[in-house]
Amino acid sequence: MSYGGIEAGGSKWVCAVGDSTNELIAVETFPTTTPTETIGRAVQFFAGHRRLIDGLGVGSFGPVDVHESSPSWGQITTTPKPGWAHTDVVAALQAALELPVAFDTDVNAAALAEAQWGAGSGLETFCYVTVGTGIGVGVVANGRLLHGLLHPEVGHMRIPHDRARDPFGGVCPFHGDCWEGLASGEALRQRWGRPAHDLSTNEAWELEAGYLALGLVNLICTISPQRIIVGGGVAKHPGLLRLVGVRVRDLLDGYLNAPEVSTAAGIEQYIVAPALGDHAGVLGAIKLAQLRAPVKQTLPTPEAVADRAG
Amino acid sequence: MSYGGIEAGGSKWVCAVGDSTNELIAVETFPTTTPTETIGRAVQFFAGHRRLIDGLGVGSFGPVDVHESSPSWGQITTTPKPGWAHTDVVAALQAALELPVAFDTDVNAAALAEAQWGAGSGLETFCYVTVGTGIGVGVVANGRLLHGLLHPEVGHMRIPHDRARDPFGGVCPFHGDCWEGLASGEALRQRWGRPAHDLSTNEAWELEAGYLALGLVNLICTISPQRIIVGGGVAKHPGLLRLVGVRVRDLLDGYLNAPEVSTAAGIEQYIVAPALGDHAGVLGAIKLAQLRAPVKQTLPTPEAVADRAG
Repeated sequence: MSYGGIEAGGSKWVCAVGDSTNELIAVETFPTTTPTETIGRAVQFFAGHRRLIDGLGVGSFGPVDVHESSPSWGQITTTPKPGWAHTDVVAALQAALELPVAFDTDVNAAALAEAQWGAGSGLETFCYVTVGTGIGVGVVANGRLLHGLLHPEVGHMRIPHDRARDPFGGVCPFHGDCWEGLASGEALRQRWGRPAHDLSTNEAWELEAGYLALGLVNLICTISPQRIIVGGGVAKHPGLLRLVGVRVRDLLDGYLNAPEVSTAAGIEQYIVAPALGDHAGVLGAIKLAQLRAPVKQTLPTPEAVADRAG
Repeated sequence: MSYGGIEAGGSKWVCAVGDSTNELIAVETFPTTTPTETIGRAVQFFAGHRRLIDGLGVGSFGPVDVHESSPSWGQITTTPKPGWAHTDVVAALQAALELPVAFDTDVNAAALAEAQWGAGSGLETFCYVTVGTGIGVGVVANGRLLHGLLHPEVGHMRIPHDRARDPFGGVCPFHGDCWEGLASGEALRQRWGRPAHDLSTNEAWELEAGYLALGLVNLICTISPQRIIVGGGVAKHPGLLRLVGVRVRDLLDGYLNAPEVSTAAGIEQYIVAPALGDHAGVLGAIKLAQLRAPVKQTLPTPEAVADRAG
């Protein structure tokens, strides 16, 4: 039994076919352009594997509507990304491919994959954070993906902003200097005039580590995760996660009585990179399809039907 | 079947006896002084009802250790409250009363009661916030009380602090100007030189509403609750919750596509007072006992034992 998965990110889409393991049978990545073009490329990819797959899972950038009983289920809703607000991703895919589609946030999908095969394995409650163009967080709480009213939108938390040290106003079109507004890849690009992968000054990365730590401390205080997995392009900067861990311990200042967050050795196992690397999102999307999309039934043979009737 | 419950708060303890309803059979409230004296008064109260009760539940101020497999389970751990750090509440009660004891945070207990009989009824994911001497939050996530690594300690989130408008440094002995440090009853008392119930200037309550709204926005962005119940003495100030709701909508600025948090009518049903009033905590403690404390078995008669052997 195989499934299709899409990690529908704000800057790129990853489409893949997989089964119940963490191996991918086929994979294709392309940039996120307009909804029509981007969804069209996904449809083209899956059409080429149509006979293999029994369902499709989508982990999407958001905010999205993940409540199946809602009229706008399957849509990207109020995103500031130009052209994408109120795009009905699920309807477009279902119409073109005639497959059942499961739908969640990109980060919840990644959290699901890490729960199944990665750094969240065996944990009841943990967070998957991605720091890329934006900041998103997927949450497993009490053993299940967390949705609640909508779904976590942790990038839009408010954190302290020391304007004397950092007069940059933030990049969030809704909130200016929310967490994502101050600490996302786009914030780095606009603050320093170059993308994160070209940034090497200590000043930039010290500031970034401080902001990331403030957000993680707020996650620790609210969700009380057993571990925090931090992925995304910005988080790959060498030494960044270690520095974030130091800052998190400084900020908590011994208040929480757990070696995971109060000791140097503990925090290195507590704030970690994704075990599945860049494939967490698309593997999670495939897992979503497996868990949630209704599965085609094998038709009973006429003999079996007769047997039951007899 | 009856149970005992203790809402073990930082400023007072409420002890009560109840059954599986939300009626209390007996109740007594006294101030939190030293551990010996306070636990002693609780023991005295329950000793007087000892034959009625089959188990005891405690909802305690924290941080506490709520993991039953941990060596420090049942203790108040790193609390800044003088004399109370590392107090083994459960061991003291068990030794004196010879009853099974269930143990959680005071706010998780209150959340449990509101889930059972109050404003959290029928919800999968919601928060119970108390704004009293400190700030605490109990969380029901995916239908169960949230513990995770330890338990939520939402009062210690970091929020923006505009020192130009509010130069007061905060009262948290660990973090200074964390959420509790800026917005708790103790913060109000120290900032304005009088307790919350004696404060009537608009300036004080406008500032308080702003801080409470920042914390609730962070809760909304992280946990995505379907409702937020706000109790505690400070929250009773007339008009405060309504003002907080206005500020929450301002801060979210339409980003979350849900009438609960984006419309005036929605937010009034979304940020609400506890339906159980001041009894949420102790009712939840009784419910904890009913759910978790092992129940005394009725001893089989010799005849029944013989029957089984035959």
